Amino acid sequence: MRTSVASVCISGGLVEKLHACAEAGFDGVEIMDADLIAAPESPEEIRALCDRLGLKIEMFQPFRDAEGVSEELFADNLRRAEAKFQIMERLGTDLMLVCSNVATASVDDDEVIARQLGELADRAAVHGIRLAYEALAWGRYVDNYRRTWEIVKRADRPNLGVCLDSFHILSLAHDPAGIEQIDAEKIFFLQLADAPALDMDVLSWSRHHRLFPGEGSFDLVGFMTHVVRAGYSGPWSLEVFNDTYRQTDTVRTAAHAHRSLVWLADRTAAANGWSDGLLGEAPQSTGLDFVEVAGADLAEVDELLAQLGFAFEGRHRSKPVRLWSAGSARIILNEQARQSEPVLAGIGLRTADAAAAVSRALALGSPSVFRRTYEGEQDLRGVAAPDGTQVFWSSLPAERSWLQEFEGGTGVVDGLEGEIDHINLAYAWQDFDEAVLFMSSALSLQADAPAEVPGPQGLIRSQVMRTPDGIVRVPINLAPPTAKPPARHIAVRCDDVFTVARRARERGIDHLRIPANYYDDLAARFDLPAEILASLRELDLLYDRDANGEFIHFYTRTIGDVFFEVVERRGGYDGYGGANAPIRLAAQR
Amino acid sequence: MRTSVASVCISGGLVEKLHACAEAGFDGVEIMDADLIAAPESPEEIRALCDRLGLKIEMFQPFRDAEGVSEELFADNLRRAEAKFQIMERLGTDLMLVCSNVATASVDDDEVIARQLGELADRAAVHGIRLAYEALAWGRYVDNYRRTWEIVKRADRPNLGVCLDSFHILSLAHDPAGIEQIDAEKIFFLQLADAPALDMDVLSWSRHHRLFPGEGSFDLVGFMTHVVRAGYSGPWSLEVFNDTYRQTDTVRTAAHAHRSLVWLADRTAAANGWSDGLLGEAPQSTGLDFVEVAGADLAEVDELLAQLGFAFEGRHRSKPVRLWSAGSARIILNEQARQSEPVLAGIGLRTADAAAAVSRALALGSPSVFRRTYEGEQDLRGVAAPDGTQVFWSSLPAERSWLQEFEGGTGVVDGLEGEIDHINLAYAWQDFDEAVLFMSSALSLQADAPAEVPGPQGLIRSQVMRTPDGIVRVPINLAPPTAKPPARHIAVRCDDVFTVARRARERGIDHLRIPANYYDDLAARFDLPAEILASLRELDLLYDRDANGEFIHFYTRTIGDVFFEVVERRGGYDGYGGANAPIRLAAQR
Repeated sequence: MRTSVASVCISGGLVEKLHACAEAGFDGVEIMDADLIAAPESPEEIRALCDRLGLKIEMFQPFRDAEGVSEELFADNLRRAEAKFQIMERLGTDLMLVCSNVATASVDDDEVIARQLGELADRAAVHGIRLAYEALAWGRYVDNYRRTWEIVKRADRPNLGVCLDSFHILSLAHDPAGIEQIDAEKIFFLQLADAPALDMDVLSWSRHHRLFPGEGSFDLVGFMTHVVRAGYSGPWSLEVFNDTYRQTDTVRTAAHAHRSLVWLADRTAAANGWSDGLLGEAPQSTGLDFVEVAGADLAEVDELLAQLGFAFEGRHRSKPVRLWSAGSARIILNEQARQSEPVLAGIGLRTADAAAAVSRALALGSPSVFRRTYEGEQDLRGVAAPDGTQVFWSSLPAERSWLQEFEGGTGVVDGLEGEIDHINLAYAWQDFDEAVLFMSSALSLQADAPAEVPGPQGLIRSQVMRTPDGIVRVPINLAPPTAKPPARHIAVRCDDVFTVARRARERGIDHLRIPANYYDDLAARFDLPAEILASLRELDLLYDRDANGEFIHFYTRTIGDVFFEVVERRGGYDGYGGANAPIRLAAQR
Repeated sequence: MRTSVASVCISGGLVEKLHACAEAGFDGVEIMDADLIAAPESPEEIRALCDRLGLKIEMFQPFRDAEGVSEELFADNLRRAEAKFQIMERLGTDLMLVCSNVATASVDDDEVIARQLGELADRAAVHGIRLAYEALAWGRYVDNYRRTWEIVKRADRPNLGVCLDSFHILSLAHDPAGIEQIDAEKIFFLQLADAPALDMDVLSWSRHHRLFPGEGSFDLVGFMTHVVRAGYSGPWSLEVFNDTYRQTDTVRTAAHAHRSLVWLADRTAAANGWSDGLLGEAPQSTGLDFVEVAGADLAEVDELLAQLGFAFEGRHRSKPVRLWSAGSARIILNEQARQSEPVLAGIGLRTADAAAAVSRALALGSPSVFRRTYEGEQDLRGVAAPDGTQVFWSSLPAERSWLQEFEGGTGVVDGLEGEIDHINLAYAWQDFDEAVLFMSSALSLQADAPAEVPGPQGLIRSQVMRTPDGIVRVPINLAPPTAKPPARHIAVRCDDVFTVARRARERGIDHLRIPANYYDDLAARFDLPAEILASLRELDLLYDRDANGEFIHFYTRTIGDVFFEVVERRGGYDGYGGANAPIRLAAQR
């Protein structure tokens, strides 16, 4: 697979975009006319830069409103096109995108449209240029790829073919199976975009809300299956108009874009049993090995963990690192970090094949993480997520590997026996899709339905990423643009949260206070026994219930950018107490 | 008119919201259940605070999914309601909003619904509580205000009435004329929201995109005409769910909200010839008296104006203020300012009745601006816009008033003869609607259709505010969330921009350079004579054309947060060269 991306997908000036695309690993680019026009560099300079960067200029785009017009207007369109053909020669690219007419079409007749496109193609041929005709979903008359193929056949010019765009086809729910009816050599180009399921007009949807493959709700694996079966062997090129990606960091967004294409090739190959593009089996995570909190001084976190009933497992024998455990839940406190404030900086995942997991994440463009180890120490292998959070994989049980590197543990009386229930990660609003794509591609987590939580400083968007079996659960939260990302937290599940809360209270914990009004509302919502309600109220416990079971939980105070939660799940409750999130957010403020 | 606002409209904790609502001048509030639940203060404390602030708690809301359910569920709903009635007694409010059932309705039968609501009302009556039944636009069975009225009539309880919500009625395009058929004493409450014309599902539209009156596309004046004619005399209460207002500054957004209600009352009164609520005639601006640039050191701006051909009109006799003019265009440079960097800090408007304009702006909640004046000096009267920009009005021609306060002018040879064409103001994305409402209400400017401009750091939203005759034009721009607001600028219109540009070049001006690719594209888009294209290219002039005429313009470099533009309009061209904005934004980067 050759990868390509339209310059409109990312922010910045054209030269900046080209550097970022090359750095991200793209083989080629589509150059948007508007990007070139606004650039101070000449077409010759852009061509030379692309040559040096090893980027092929796959296509120049778009040429609009060419066909289906009066003869007078068409004559002017030929003049317009001629000027662009000259620019293309200077750029050294031979493929132009011709979008179906939106604004000026007055003739809804394949015969006329084919004749005009044919004449345009003849003019292009003089310059050695090919034309890829694309149906826009809001084209005045031509809005269906099957019709563009009929028109292209009718025009019958060697340098006129079709361009397929997944958005225009899937947004109108056109069946992509018909792609297999198109002659392979006549599919001149392929543009890919995903999109969320939105019930809105297709033009606004397309202009503002497209997503990279894997981030939306389109079946792009199914789409690509048809395209590959049709025999298409050209580049897979992203064309994503997204208000957010237009303003996020150029280099980071280009990397994000490239990851989405690699993911799509992998998933398409996997679904069809093809070897081309396949990154190898995606190893399923079978548990959380540890969670790491980093910071310059973590003494307050030590204290909080001790109050929660964690057992101190000792200090690392060669690094300023400490380990706490509660049953199978392990928290590593790392004071090697550059961050001054405590942050949730890393997670360790267990999997059957750690080497395969790491190599898959690397192939998906994640930078590898280096951890210096000494003789006899476990070699930790992992990658950095786009936001810098480190992810490690291990195939050995901790007991048989790195746990032995810690010395001087003291244990605990009446300790907390538990396991990690979930890890809550928070992001700035503009980094959300990037985080979701990283987790779904490199960590093979699946996305639950998104939710929204009203907080005192705006709506928090929430999305749970998890293994299908729920062994690894990572709810991620998105702060509103004017607020800083909320703190991250680690939730430990136990069998008796009342006892854990009571013992933590006895150890002097500073927990999150819940307003009395909350308990009055609980009484209204649920017909709870008075003594249960009194215990919840006394211990500042939050409560939720659904058809399957109950959820009871409490929070600690926040230290730096981290806090802890202790939860108890009863019955088949599978949520996270979302109804209580506004209460927590208000109480934390 | 009594004003009220639902606590959900603004950000913050409940106590913070109440203080802001009182400060903004609201007479009352609707307290959202969720806001109370998350508050650490008891209902009694909230009641006492509202008493002290002079805020009436008009309504407690919402009570959901009460009616049209199985008898078993209804029994639990009565239990739920009982708990809330007790909270309401503690709060000291006697009106509860009952929304039509969305989630649990199973009986689509007015008889059953009326019987259950009647029973609920009887329980409420024990506590002296009244119920206002509202049709949600996405109610499972009841989504029309006429049906709620039928049901309320059928239930026939003295403490059961309807709540009207402009969003739920106008979003479904239900005819509000039927409101006049409802008995006045049975309209228990009125909720107001505007909304933009969006083609999307009504639930998302309502939850995220509501606007304050005057900011959207609903005919709220027409709506309120029916409500007042029906005999309703209760509070006008805002209920606006808006993702932005949930996160903007609490105090500022409350003031913004209150302004929208005052505006609506004024416009409704004006449309109907009623005196109640009318702020007096809205005086039309007849021109721009001056534009003020403020900064600690404006020497560079002096230089730029001289290079453009402005005439130096002298120094103010008592303040560190200088005046430059170009025909009727006057730029005041004010070094009294606290700002260090040069900013576009104020505008002076001419109008037939300056006193009326000022008193109208004050009545709309704008703070008045103080300018110290000395004996014999013109008394400037004005207000501060929400972002701090100062607006002054004058009824006297400048020649007969404040111009004479400047001394020592030097004139200019071959100067620029012009007038202010437009003033471009820029805002952070979250301040956009607030700015538009201020300009439409306090400055009586009307909003043209909004547009979007792709810039290298994201989409810029643009909205032109203007007098109908175009004498005052204020395009305003909205930066994407991750970028700082773009610089503001002042555009001067002249008769021959080629000559002005050439002279400015001779005076050594540092103007904005336009890329050569732009002129290649101009050649493609417009069939311009070669010598015109050569002059445009030589002088870095931008060009636009529409069916009515032509627009030729250039920009200066940016100093601090201000730059200048010189424009020439030919024929009936009425735009602002929007097609060139991406070029400018890229060149300014």
